[in-house]
Amino acid sequence: MMRSDLPLSEARAYRPDLMVPDDLAEFWRATLDDAPVSWDAVRVDNGLLAIETHDVSFAGFGGDPVRAWLHLPAPGLRSGPLPGVVQFQGYNGGRGLAHEHVFWATAGYAQLVVDTRGQGSGWTTGATGDVGPAGPSQPGFLTRGIEDRDTYYYRRAYADACRAVEVLRGHDAVDPARVAVAGASQGGALALAAAALVPDLVAAVLCDVPFLCDLRRSADLAQAEPCLELVRYLGAHRDRVEQTFATLAYFDGAVLARLARAPALFSVAMMDVICPPTTVFAAFNAYGGPKGVEVYEFNDHEGGEAFQRSRQLVWLRAALGPG
Amino acid sequence: MMRSDLPLSEARAYRPDLMVPDDLAEFWRATLDDAPVSWDAVRVDNGLLAIETHDVSFAGFGGDPVRAWLHLPAPGLRSGPLPGVVQFQGYNGGRGLAHEHVFWATAGYAQLVVDTRGQGSGWTTGATGDVGPAGPSQPGFLTRGIEDRDTYYYRRAYADACRAVEVLRGHDAVDPARVAVAGASQGGALALAAAALVPDLVAAVLCDVPFLCDLRRSADLAQAEPCLELVRYLGAHRDRVEQTFATLAYFDGAVLARLARAPALFSVAMMDVICPPTTVFAAFNAYGGPKGVEVYEFNDHEGGEAFQRSRQLVWLRAALGPG
Amino acid sequence: MMRSDLPLSEARAYRPDLMVPDDLAEFWRATLDDAPVSWDAVRVDNGLLAIETHDVSFAGFGGDPVRAWLHLPAPGLRSGPLPGVVQFQGYNGGRGLAHEHVFWATAGYAQLVVDTRGQGSGWTTGATGDVGPAGPSQPGFLTRGIEDRDTYYYRRAYADACRAVEVLRGHDAVDPARVAVAGASQGGALALAAAALVPDLVAAVLCDVPFLCDLRRSADLAQAEPCLELVRYLGAHRDRVEQTFATLAYFDGAVLARLARAPALFSVAMMDVICPPTTVFAAFNAYGGPKGVEVYEFNDHEGGEAFQRSRQLVWLRAALGPG
Amino acid sequence: MMRSDLPLSEARAYRPDLMVPDDLAEFWRATLDDAPVSWDAVRVDNGLLAIETHDVSFAGFGGDPVRAWLHLPAPGLRSGPLPGVVQFQGYNGGRGLAHEHVFWATAGYAQLVVDTRGQGSGWTTGATGDVGPAGPSQPGFLTRGIEDRDTYYYRRAYADACRAVEVLRGHDAVDPARVAVAGASQGGALALAAAALVPDLVAAVLCDVPFLCDLRRSADLAQAEPCLELVRYLGAHRDRVEQTFATLAYFDGAVLARLARAPALFSVAMMDVICPPTTVFAAFNAYGGPKGVEVYEFNDHEGGEAFQRSRQLVWLRAALGPG
Amino acid sequence: MMRSDLPLSEARAYRPDLMVPDDLAEFWRATLDDAPVSWDAVRVDNGLLAIETHDVSFAGFGGDPVRAWLHLPAPGLRSGPLPGVVQFQGYNGGRGLAHEHVFWATAGYAQLVVDTRGQGSGWTTGATGDVGPAGPSQPGFLTRGIEDRDTYYYRRAYADACRAVEVLRGHDAVDPARVAVAGASQGGALALAAAALVPDLVAAVLCDVPFLCDLRRSADLAQAEPCLELVRYLGAHRDRVEQTFATLAYFDGAVLARLARAPALFSVAMMDVICPPTTVFAAFNAYGGPKGVEVYEFNDHEGGEAFQRSRQLVWLRAALGPG
Amino acid sequence: MMRSDLPLSEARAYRPDLMVPDDLAEFWRATLDDAPVSWDAVRVDNGLLAIETHDVSFAGFGGDPVRAWLHLPAPGLRSGPLPGVVQFQGYNGGRGLAHEHVFWATAGYAQLVVDTRGQGSGWTTGATGDVGPAGPSQPGFLTRGIEDRDTYYYRRAYADACRAVEVLRGHDAVDPARVAVAGASQGGALALAAAALVPDLVAAVLCDVPFLCDLRRSADLAQAEPCLELVRYLGAHRDRVEQTFATLAYFDGAVLARLARAPALFSVAMMDVICPPTTVFAAFNAYGGPKGVEVYEFNDHEGGEAFQRSRQLVWLRAALGPG
Repeated sequence: MMRSDLPLSEARAYRPDLMVPDDLAEFWRATLDDAPVSWDAVRVDNGLLAIETHDVSFAGFGGDPVRAWLHLPAPGLRSGPLPGVVQFQGYNGGRGLAHEHVFWATAGYAQLVVDTRGQGSGWTTGATGDVGPAGPSQPGFLTRGIEDRDTYYYRRAYADACRAVEVLRGHDAVDPARVAVAGASQGGALALAAAALVPDLVAAVLCDVPFLCDLRRSADLAQAEPCLELVRYLGAHRDRVEQTFATLAYFDGAVLARLARAPALFSVAMMDVICPPTTVFAAFNAYGGPKGVEVYEFNDHEGGEAFQRSRQLVWLRAALGPG
Repeated sequence: MMRSDLPLSEARAYRPDLMVPDDLAEFWRATLDDAPVSWDAVRVDNGLLAIETHDVSFAGFGGDPVRAWLHLPAPGLRSGPLPGVVQFQGYNGGRGLAHEHVFWATAGYAQLVVDTRGQGSGWTTGATGDVGPAGPSQPGFLTRGIEDRDTYYYRRAYADACRAVEVLRGHDAVDPARVAVAGASQGGALALAAAALVPDLVAAVLCDVPFLCDLRRSADLAQAEPCLELVRYLGAHRDRVEQTFATLAYFDGAVLARLARAPALFSVAMMDVICPPTTVFAAFNAYGGPKGVEVYEFNDHEGGEAFQRSRQLVWLRAALGPG
Repeated sequence: MMRSDLPLSEARAYRPDLMVPDDLAEFWRATLDDAPVSWDAVRVDNGLLAIETHDVSFAGFGGDPVRAWLHLPAPGLRSGPLPGVVQFQGYNGGRGLAHEHVFWATAGYAQLVVDTRGQGSGWTTGATGDVGPAGPSQPGFLTRGIEDRDTYYYRRAYADACRAVEVLRGHDAVDPARVAVAGASQGGALALAAAALVPDLVAAVLCDVPFLCDLRRSADLAQAEPCLELVRYLGAHRDRVEQTFATLAYFDGAVLARLARAPALFSVAMMDVICPPTTVFAAFNAYGGPKGVEVYEFNDHEGGEAFQRSRQLVWLRAALGPG
Repeated sequence: MMRSDLPLSEARAYRPDLMVPDDLAEFWRATLDDAPVSWDAVRVDNGLLAIETHDVSFAGFGGDPVRAWLHLPAPGLRSGPLPGVVQFQGYNGGRGLAHEHVFWATAGYAQLVVDTRGQGSGWTTGATGDVGPAGPSQPGFLTRGIEDRDTYYYRRAYADACRAVEVLRGHDAVDPARVAVAGASQGGALALAAAALVPDLVAAVLCDVPFLCDLRRSADLAQAEPCLELVRYLGAHRDRVEQTFATLAYFDGAVLARLARAPALFSVAMMDVICPPTTVFAAFNAYGGPKGVEVYEFNDHEGGEAFQRSRQLVWLRAALGPG
Repeated sequence: MMRSDLPLSEARAYRPDLMVPDDLAEFWRATLDDAPVSWDAVRVDNGLLAIETHDVSFAGFGGDPVRAWLHLPAPGLRSGPLPGVVQFQGYNGGRGLAHEHVFWATAGYAQLVVDTRGQGSGWTTGATGDVGPAGPSQPGFLTRGIEDRDTYYYRRAYADACRAVEVLRGHDAVDPARVAVAGASQGGALALAAAALVPDLVAAVLCDVPFLCDLRRSADLAQAEPCLELVRYLGAHRDRVEQTFATLAYFDGAVLARLARAPALFSVAMMDVICPPTTVFAAFNAYGGPKGVEVYEFNDHEGGEAFQRSRQLVWLRAALGPG
Repeated sequence: MMRSDLPLSEARAYRPDLMVPDDLAEFWRATLDDAPVSWDAVRVDNGLLAIETHDVSFAGFGGDPVRAWLHLPAPGLRSGPLPGVVQFQGYNGGRGLAHEHVFWATAGYAQLVVDTRGQGSGWTTGATGDVGPAGPSQPGFLTRGIEDRDTYYYRRAYADACRAVEVLRGHDAVDPARVAVAGASQGGALALAAAALVPDLVAAVLCDVPFLCDLRRSADLAQAEPCLELVRYLGAHRDRVEQTFATLAYFDGAVLARLARAPALFSVAMMDVICPPTTVFAAFNAYGGPKGVEVYEFNDHEGGEAFQRSRQLVWLRAALGPG
């Protein structure tokens, strides 16, 4: 577990000069069309006394159905509109079972745990498929549709994330002015994307060891999946290297971060071989809102885990008001 | 991830003829002396709305202090004495932070999450040390003090587990007749030990992919830590093989299981390379009380995870009455 | 590289009693509708003196465009209608570049190298995308759409393979009565599928170390990708094990093989950890036509390679007449 | 697959100051004595319509017999003297079977595929043994006879390579003024050696990811076989480090390259952990003739594969005239 | 086996500015109390003609019994007081069996092979246990009791080492003015500690690839056990990083080395991934006495082995006079 | 470290029906010609007080020079002719340095440590080269010259071993009637070969975890080098499987063992993945003289190490008389 990225002092100062596509804003404006929010929810029995759970299906990118759980503190625990947390999942995961990812609801928040389309057959399960035009790709999601910005998988996934924020803000039990986005790894990238692309809708950001930042450097440094999907794709399609990175510029968290405005708490792990720490600092340093970062010096991609949860409980309460 | 143990139909029928020490009962009677239960608890702020947490320290084996968290559903959620779950942790883990392992409390149970002495610097942290006489050992806990049944590490750990049951039963908020023990891997072994050694105190058992069962076969089949600690120890001390297994017979879950009486729900993973499935069936088939087992055919040691939690929520509610 | 499957004498005799779906024929009849064959081809410069290459696009399953190369011996080398070989590729590969996979054309055959839709970003490249309805899946193609036989990825891929045979048979330069199918690993599975599903169109089969045979046993024994995609999927979706294998029964090479009628030359590698040898014998023993098998005792999944090519040159010349 | 060598811009500029033995020319002059070329060839049936193959045996270093295949385009495809390609193989490989390595013949060249003495029991087979005086060595060829420049394995192998050029030039069907050398990895080193040691006989060079360049740096950076043979040898014979590198200086591709004069097309892979990219640039930058290099940024030692083949087809046609 | 530390020229110059605790001397003075040396020895049959062996037990830290072998040249080989070597063992080892580690006795020295308390169930066996107060720790010895300098495992181990020097010096057959300490890896750290903490008692030091030097850098660079124990501990106890390194400063070989006065022969391996070479140079450069270092450029942690033994035989004879 | 061979009770009974070549005796008689023993020895300074060492060079197979160390107990330790031990080394090793492998001399025996020709650049060094006719082979010694029994590497190595016995028997200081052969792994095979091929010259055999026994089963079961050299060779030369095993039959320890007559002490390790335990029992059960075997149940190829040494000291003293 030898360190393989820059030491902390240099990593903190790392600010790459990343290419920003001229039509970045236009691309995302066209992507996030103004279709009205549409969703429905069904109460389910989660077996838990303290949490009330609803099975949510909302219209994501292109109107495709996206599944989520809405977890609320049990009625005896709440009074007045709740602050909310939209939680995005790491690569290969989904919303899980109805009792599974309820932390923020336990802490007093309305928590929307959102599927990542097509994923959810790995560390935790999901219920949302993905259909989109896509050329030949490496197994996995990172290169699906990567031959064009319009067909790229994360165009759909980022749009779903923005729409999920609208869904939680629109729920009766929730105070729309106090909705945060949260996630680790790919979940951190999705949170960052929502904060950047619908900055007026997001009140706070919890972004842990985010994936999909400074992707060219990630492809150079990453030693583990899923970034190796991209490396293998470029190793096969040797003639598409520059075109691929031109496409990825529209989705790079370190490019998008400058558009965000909400206060954010990041975390970074200095031995992270999946999301190298400099790529996290690239996003953090570019981030456009008030911000702080917790550094875990001796952790790989697991990052701060329960220690970061403790820090987030305090920070989010301060940012949004009591849960 | 090739299967390397017997196929399911043969594994289900596996009932090894394990050596039972003549003085097994006597050894444990002497170990579990009749010192009165002694503990104190301090309310802590866990940052969670739905859970109330107390920092517990109780007198374990030899009076050594053992730490635990007592998590209760928030006052607004409870009425009358609570059913309880004593939760034991897997190898290398501890009780974690105050907000970390609260599942059963969320489900409506008084949950005591118990440190495993000396452990807790791995996947989750602990706060309890271990001091005991011990000869030369392999790094780890599995061979600490193994040169003699009286000095063996798990003598202390099993005794702590039994004492933890008494602690939760003795709490004002808890109905002492409705206290279950629960755990996975090493936690499953500790739950099994408590169920076997203080059978009158345990009302139900949740035992997932238990470690420390049929240890000679485990040493033959296990492909991963921590059982390799034992293999390496025997590979070094080539003259102590028989003596070591004679000692381990006092601690083998498949030997002790026959002493248990409470209803139990086991789970087993057929691709488990840490706790091979036959060793789990050895314990299950020997188990002395009413029992059932969930089989996960395509899982390694992670077992059923959230799927098993769903099953346990239903089963435990039936076994103990509503949480 | 220890052997981990049955020894050769037992493997040769391995004939599992696999479930054959009642409506297997009906399912495939409905899948392989009677849309007319449709394709176009454009001559390209491959840089080779001895081979003439055309870039082919034909209508595959659902009319989706599928790309292939048609390689013909240079005009100076041919006279009269050519025997043909439809070549399917292994997992993660595609038709490659225009000069890349020309072996059978060099040997005197009209060779159609067919893309496998969506693949082709690995060991060799492709140019064909895949769009299909699909629920949450493991990264990769093996579990894409596996929640239903109608949406399963290999439904589309097998249908493409059958259509490719029609394409080559329909070419002016080719003798339609002398068209073979060929492939190794996934390519072997596709060749087997075509031989089984359009038995009247296939004159000979070259099937090396085929994938996708006796899939339940494969999932038990396989130690390497891509079968582990299935194992991980089942490890996540613990509630879909039986349903998944019921779906896979429609696509299992050892089930379909009995429908084939053309003479076939198989090969099997006794140290194959990707396509375990018994699963190959399961298909071979079930195969419905005249057949032979070459056994490579000390090879992993690479199988016989050039040695098998030598054998195939002779066998195919005998089966189809001179190339 | 983290990059572990210098970034591209620095690698391009890497020009180490390598020790050149005073008597380098003399050593090689003595090695490449002026024995007349001697060989015989027997036509064999390769099973291919487009290629005519001869089994060649020629007198290599010390008169030892060395085997090769001579592949010619079928008579119907050729007119007038052919340009030629002498192809050397990568480590552990040989000339293969008679139908196996025929790419350049398919493209219209007379192709001589040369065994590397003693090798040929790995990824492809050979038929040539090696007998030479040799002290204790690591398993493998890299340290065989390394205790003295006169007994070193690659003295024999390089001399064989030079002699192979003479063989192809001497064939009736071949235009001696248009003979190229080609190879990847060890094959690239052998091509480079021939171009340097018999510069008047070589008309063009195709040198992909060459091995045996800047060997001290290779020993520092290489993470995979075969360079680790050298590392282990030096780790055992701790007293022979300087002597060993003094010997290797006579064989180092980055030392010899300056003697070459023919136009050359190199390729380098920036994630190559077997032949680190700077060691390739060390040879490329030292190369004494006109030169170009293709860079593959996201490839390991496989390099450009079919993409480089495309590039070579065009380049070689320009360099030698049409095949 | 790519080099992953600084190149030799930079490593030689590496002199980190390590924190020296203000009360370092005081801490060790208090630890090494002035209890009188106490030990007994029993002659055993080792089966060897040339060596006479005694089973020694001496009072180590806190009076705990520590076992050792005293090996003497057979009576026929010795005349007058012998020079002595106290040999400390590498991690996980012990004194072994009575015939096992007799090199220095064969060379003519009185050799005391000392157990490392609690260890000795790995590459060689031991007979000494360890009991000490200790909080939760990673499996292994490196983090045992690390929560406080007073409870840290290596406080006891270093104190044992100093006491062992006194034991050998006090033996009748030994010349107390000519006693060296020796060891590799952890053994090198123990030798260094004894040379630093009882500088008046040690006449020479043989210190090979020492462990426990510049521990913060070691934790950054080490790629293998046992330093990863520390990394994992810090990864779990994210809140104890600074406190832990403050504790380790009392035990760091590169801090203590400046207190040593005896002539020393070090060795370092430039491909050492367990004890990175710069950490060895950190200790070497800080070492307070006359010193030399052998560099093994192509070795991992095995270092110079028999070659270093040859060097040591000569050096030690010069330093202590004939054995 | 899962067991992967038969359990102990079945392994003990394993007696394969191996093919014995008709002309086995004749082949070896022709190989071991009756050239007179020829050797010289030079006293060297080994730096050791207790051991006197001579650098020996003797005429091995074909008269090739083979190096060895002759270690004698120092003159003060000996009286009368000494019993002797000829020690053969494991794969990749040599006689080492002059002070390195002196165990049996320390125990009172004249010890001849013999180089294995061509080896000695691995775990310990050697000084003897190998020159022999050899076709294409895998890197390593196991397949060198394997295309013919006359050119096979181990023909030379076994003949050297027999000659070494004659050398030690012929030394002035040695009692020729009391010379044992000893070795582990490849060294065990060489000891076994000498005992079988010159049975009248060998008085006792120490044979630990021998390599080269029941080679077809070894190739099936071995999971580590060097047996994988053979597997890879057969995987390449798919047409030489039967011929290769026919050649190996002349060298298989389990075939030769029946020719031996001297008392022998074997050892076997039940978790040995290099020399699987059944292959050792195949040789042991076939062994033609009085015999015993020590079983190490939890050891891999390291076997009994110092514990076996203890056993051997006692056994050899009984077999040969006091050292």
